[in-house]
Amino acid sequence: MAKKPTIIWTKVDEAPALATYSLYPIMKNFVKHAGVELEQRDISLAGRILAQFGYQPDDLAYLGELVWKPEANIVKLPNISASVPQLIEAIKELQSQGYDLPDYPENPQTEEEKEIKAKYDKCVGSVVNPVLRQGNSDRRIAPPVKNYAKKHPHKMRDVSPKSESYVAYMKSGDFYEHEKSVTIKKDGKIRYEFVDKDGNVQVLKEIEVGMGDVIDGTFMSRRKLKEFFEEVINDAKDKDILFSLHVKATMMKVSDPAIFGDAIRVYYKKLFEKHGKELEEIGFDPNKGLIDLENKLSKLSPEKQEEIKKTLEEIYKEQPRLYMVDSDRGITNLHRPNDVIIDASIPAVIKNGLQGWGPSGETDDCVITVPDRSYATMYSEIVEDIKVRGQFDPTKVGTVQNIGLMAMKAEEYGSHDKTFFPPADGKIRIVDEEGNVLMEHEVEKDDIYRSCHTKDIAIRDWVKLAVNRAKETGLPIVFWLDSLRAHDRQLIEKVKEELNKYDLEGVEYYIKPPREAMKFTLERFRKGLDTISVTGNVLRDYLTDLFPIIEVGTSARALSIVPLIAGGGLFETGAGGSAPKHVQQFVKEGHLRWDSLGEFLAFVEALKLAYKQAGSENERILVMAETLSKAVERYLDNDKTPKRKVGQLDTRGSHYWLARYWAEELAAQTKDAELAKIFEPVAAKLIENEEKILSEIAATEGSPKDIGGYYHPDDEKATAAMRPSKTFNEIIDNL
Amino acid sequence: MAKKPTIIWTKVDEAPALATYSLYPIMKNFVKHAGVELEQRDISLAGRILAQFGYQPDDLAYLGELVWKPEANIVKLPNISASVPQLIEAIKELQSQGYDLPDYPENPQTEEEKEIKAKYDKCVGSVVNPVLRQGNSDRRIAPPVKNYAKKHPHKMRDVSPKSESYVAYMKSGDFYEHEKSVTIKKDGKIRYEFVDKDGNVQVLKEIEVGMGDVIDGTFMSRRKLKEFFEEVINDAKDKDILFSLHVKATMMKVSDPAIFGDAIRVYYKKLFEKHGKELEEIGFDPNKGLIDLENKLSKLSPEKQEEIKKTLEEIYKEQPRLYMVDSDRGITNLHRPNDVIIDASIPAVIKNGLQGWGPSGETDDCVITVPDRSYATMYSEIVEDIKVRGQFDPTKVGTVQNIGLMAMKAEEYGSHDKTFFPPADGKIRIVDEEGNVLMEHEVEKDDIYRSCHTKDIAIRDWVKLAVNRAKETGLPIVFWLDSLRAHDRQLIEKVKEELNKYDLEGVEYYIKPPREAMKFTLERFRKGLDTISVTGNVLRDYLTDLFPIIEVGTSARALSIVPLIAGGGLFETGAGGSAPKHVQQFVKEGHLRWDSLGEFLAFVEALKLAYKQAGSENERILVMAETLSKAVERYLDNDKTPKRKVGQLDTRGSHYWLARYWAEELAAQTKDAELAKIFEPVAAKLIENEEKILSEIAATEGSPKDIGGYYHPDDEKATAAMRPSKTFNEIIDNL
Repeated sequence: MAKKPTIIWTKVDEAPALATYSLYPIMKNFVKHAGVELEQRDISLAGRILAQFGYQPDDLAYLGELVWKPEANIVKLPNISASVPQLIEAIKELQSQGYDLPDYPENPQTEEEKEIKAKYDKCVGSVVNPVLRQGNSDRRIAPPVKNYAKKHPHKMRDVSPKSESYVAYMKSGDFYEHEKSVTIKKDGKIRYEFVDKDGNVQVLKEIEVGMGDVIDGTFMSRRKLKEFFEEVINDAKDKDILFSLHVKATMMKVSDPAIFGDAIRVYYKKLFEKHGKELEEIGFDPNKGLIDLENKLSKLSPEKQEEIKKTLEEIYKEQPRLYMVDSDRGITNLHRPNDVIIDASIPAVIKNGLQGWGPSGETDDCVITVPDRSYATMYSEIVEDIKVRGQFDPTKVGTVQNIGLMAMKAEEYGSHDKTFFPPADGKIRIVDEEGNVLMEHEVEKDDIYRSCHTKDIAIRDWVKLAVNRAKETGLPIVFWLDSLRAHDRQLIEKVKEELNKYDLEGVEYYIKPPREAMKFTLERFRKGLDTISVTGNVLRDYLTDLFPIIEVGTSARALSIVPLIAGGGLFETGAGGSAPKHVQQFVKEGHLRWDSLGEFLAFVEALKLAYKQAGSENERILVMAETLSKAVERYLDNDKTPKRKVGQLDTRGSHYWLARYWAEELAAQTKDAELAKIFEPVAAKLIENEEKILSEIAATEGSPKDIGGYYHPDDEKATAAMRPSKTFNEIIDNL
Repeated sequence: MAKKPTIIWTKVDEAPALATYSLYPIMKNFVKHAGVELEQRDISLAGRILAQFGYQPDDLAYLGELVWKPEANIVKLPNISASVPQLIEAIKELQSQGYDLPDYPENPQTEEEKEIKAKYDKCVGSVVNPVLRQGNSDRRIAPPVKNYAKKHPHKMRDVSPKSESYVAYMKSGDFYEHEKSVTIKKDGKIRYEFVDKDGNVQVLKEIEVGMGDVIDGTFMSRRKLKEFFEEVINDAKDKDILFSLHVKATMMKVSDPAIFGDAIRVYYKKLFEKHGKELEEIGFDPNKGLIDLENKLSKLSPEKQEEIKKTLEEIYKEQPRLYMVDSDRGITNLHRPNDVIIDASIPAVIKNGLQGWGPSGETDDCVITVPDRSYATMYSEIVEDIKVRGQFDPTKVGTVQNIGLMAMKAEEYGSHDKTFFPPADGKIRIVDEEGNVLMEHEVEKDDIYRSCHTKDIAIRDWVKLAVNRAKETGLPIVFWLDSLRAHDRQLIEKVKEELNKYDLEGVEYYIKPPREAMKFTLERFRKGLDTISVTGNVLRDYLTDLFPIIEVGTSARALSIVPLIAGGGLFETGAGGSAPKHVQQFVKEGHLRWDSLGEFLAFVEALKLAYKQAGSENERILVMAETLSKAVERYLDNDKTPKRKVGQLDTRGSHYWLARYWAEELAAQTKDAELAKIFEPVAAKLIENEEKILSEIAATEGSPKDIGGYYHPDDEKATAAMRPSKTFNEIIDNL
């Protein structure tokens, strides 16, 4: 046998951290029989703080190095991306636990304070993913989840053949139209310059680029964007259907709020015409949504406020009905830019029979507005497909997996720091160190200019990944690339170059623009055939919600793997976040409803990688993976997921079932008789003690639990709360 | 019984005119038993000339009045749209027959000559259709033809799932993007003005408009068109597939040659760069195709000619291979603007497995370039549909009928006289009599500006026609209209208004933009379901070739009905033209291979209309129509169409079979016993004399025929030649 593989299990925050107290011992003690080590590393908010001030090793830094080594094998549970208020709360808690930590200096004065703030700031926001995600993305539905969905399909509402819903996109003037792209010829720097009509040059930014990197520039015309909104809003009105806008302001933090703001400027045009002066006075920023007006309205006199409210009412009468986020509370699509997130919201419309909810809580057809054509057309294709062929049937459709170009802030999702609003009419150009103009765009004041930087190594790794998946699965891979789009044209060239390097025996690949790729994929999908989509970063994000939601009702149950560029693997879980409400419920009434399904599935994949890392010789690791996968299928089939209410099955009980099914499967398998022998008595004991174990757990339901801290629980207290069954613990600990 | 209906049978030219000598007596003598009159009216070129000079009544003028009366019921066979050389030939022939006609004065000097020329000019070009086509269009495949195709499918080449063919269209800058449209509020005049940068106004044209008419204006940016060609040509090169361009220069006589010319300017860019001066010297006009260069090349010195030919060779090596019209003779797609006609050429590519022919006679994938998005997207949809779902199977597909907005020079097809090339950068605007600007467009020098005028009455009649067809057939009707296109938005409003006027009980209707309409239609089509497309003039033209070619292999076998606005009907036959070659063959060797199938089918429809015109009481007329339809089906099934070669079955023999089957069907039907009794002996005699009749006809094969004139045959001689069977004639004449 070769080297002993180690799987890192991340210690995180809130509900998944609590679940870990119960699950980790099970996982660790099962797989040690296959020679696999498990090791915890702390990336929790509290852990990161303590590491900054020397109370414990800096595990995140350790992992940051590990991910660049081939032996990396990390199960990453969801952690807190802390806001400043959360950080302050965490510091207070740690101080109360006796750690000598300074307060957070919001306005640092001294050098020392500045240093302290700098340390704390390393704990704020999304600081873990950028460190760990050193690879592209491999997302798919694990077989047990797919099988479960086929047997227990979720509801997909029928679609009327008369549906008037459709995806609206711009005729011209969008990012799609204006894109230019170059492949960098040598390492160096490039700079972005704005040149005004008089030839004055202003450097907007300078960045480092490497040979082979792809640099794009493009812009959206605000003038044409507004004309488009005007047209689409009128069309929704003519048809008397809902108007909806779908953007990704959470991710495209600079460009999409501006697009969102323009929708407000057009839909509420009358408001700006009648009350422009007052709106300016109070500093209403449409890019922040109508909520910003509501928040600032009190700055005006009661009379003015009344006038504005009256105008709003008039607008709602005159304009088409808006798609609602929450019609009970009057929250519209245009309330907040982050409320309607395209990758989740369009699948929701699809699930709902191509309808949205209107102001009176009614469901109705809607114009699904996605201004830019780069990706809108594929949504148009699926919506139209449903209109003519009917709603998807989860019991019959195939699966669509995704290999996404995500590494190193690829494409649009890394463009925030290169998104500019020209201060006047003029040009934005990209210039290299020798002064060569790589590209330039004529822009008008306030247009949205955006540049993407995609690293050569990331692109090549992505192609490799796609080929590997094709070989592993025998499925066709489809590169969603449009040869008439500048960026995609650069990528197609690289894809072809890379493909030439591989033995493509048995690899069926296609290169198709998004609309056609969708058409091709749907044709297979409806026949129950499986397909791998190979896409850029945005489509990765969109498709890995879209298809899982159609197939299994949610994207939270999809596997999210980051095959690291250096050869290791990162297995992410918990698209649903770290669930603070679950912790509150557990502390209050001793019932935890975190479903560890994502962790189970990720662990199957981690084991498969461990098998490879150990030289593909230790078949016992594969047996572990296969039996766990079967156990998960039974777990789902028998509905052993945690329930919502106290007294029902909770996380802890669900872990019992998982352990039991796994042990049973290990005992029943015939590939490794020795292993079966080890687990036969374990399975027997687990079966025998079912009632006892479950009642020992149930006995603790209904009463408050002390876990010794919210951000930094006390390990002993938390372990006690999460492992309440002596009988179960003994079986596990003696494995 | 009500009034006696009369069907007009047009006397025309060349092959269909010859066929008429044989067919007309059959038709006339059969239907007289149902109380239907047949009457010939002369719209031949010779007839029109003789009428101009008082030698016979002006039948075209008569028909021009008749079409505006509800009793009009006209079977219109294909006639000559005379060129000036044809006119001169016809005059010579008539002079030789003793008619005292003046010569054609090409450069008239005196008043008298001018008057003569004016009379002759009324006979030149397409002068019949504009007079007769006073209605919209109803095109479909008659059931016997459809049934025949299902039993005897034509060849449709398979499509590889790896096909790289696709339809390329502009991202922006096209007619689709810039269209504006208004509905005229009151009768009056409007004028088109060009305004230069200094505000100087030039009136381009003035036209009369009526209340409710729809006026559109739009333009195509030549700059963006050329950028687009550049991009698409490069893409074809990258993919190593053929470049093809599909326009309709025969119909869009002003705009499409300019588009075609720009394709030449881009594809042959190097030619213009290297030899610009010489090309200008000899006056090469790219809008006329590369043939214009070939024609003018001899004006240059042999050295220069050689240089240019060398450059052309270089270009063909450097640029992507061109789609060929005739690879044997080196005729490329860019040779002549009229060689590749979109409505025929794209269906040919589809039939050929999404491939075209390349320079070496090879078939290969091709970029199917259709610059403007107004109609390109529906071609894109069908091409992509074939790529994912495979080639169409004529034995399984449904039928797609069309109701087209054609009346009164509707839409783009009436826009020649309102197509302008701005002499400089500036504006083109449309202004009404009060000086109100109805719309204006910022244009650049040489952009293609185009305005359409669609008459209110034509639109309303078109909607009525669609509703009537829906009721008659029970089929869904789909209005191919895009609510995000300005012109279509005006039409949608009218469609909704009109629909409100009708009882829509049982009418299933949809309004969908072209791409989606195509998707919807194809979904039904592939399931074998029938659909009625209700479209504007361009889509009428495109779809009534596209679907018939897929369904039955040719559009020549489709019914082409013009339900006249005044209530009558015009039944057009002969999409294949009037076939001069057939006449030559007949004169030379006594074999005529004109297939009268179109006339048979048209006559079925004319009889159905006659039934209605006679008050829907005389069921005998319907029996005539139904039995003729059955006879046609047998005619096709038993392959009694005329063959190509002398000695084989020809037109005359085919008429025997038609008459015989018809008589048999009349004898066999049970709806009208009296009628059956009349035709029982006729059928018996036709059967009994089969051999005798066919050998009497066959006896005349192989020897030259004298018909007394090409343009103006001698009726006696032509009758003798076309009715050579005494036995057959006796049966028919004694009916």
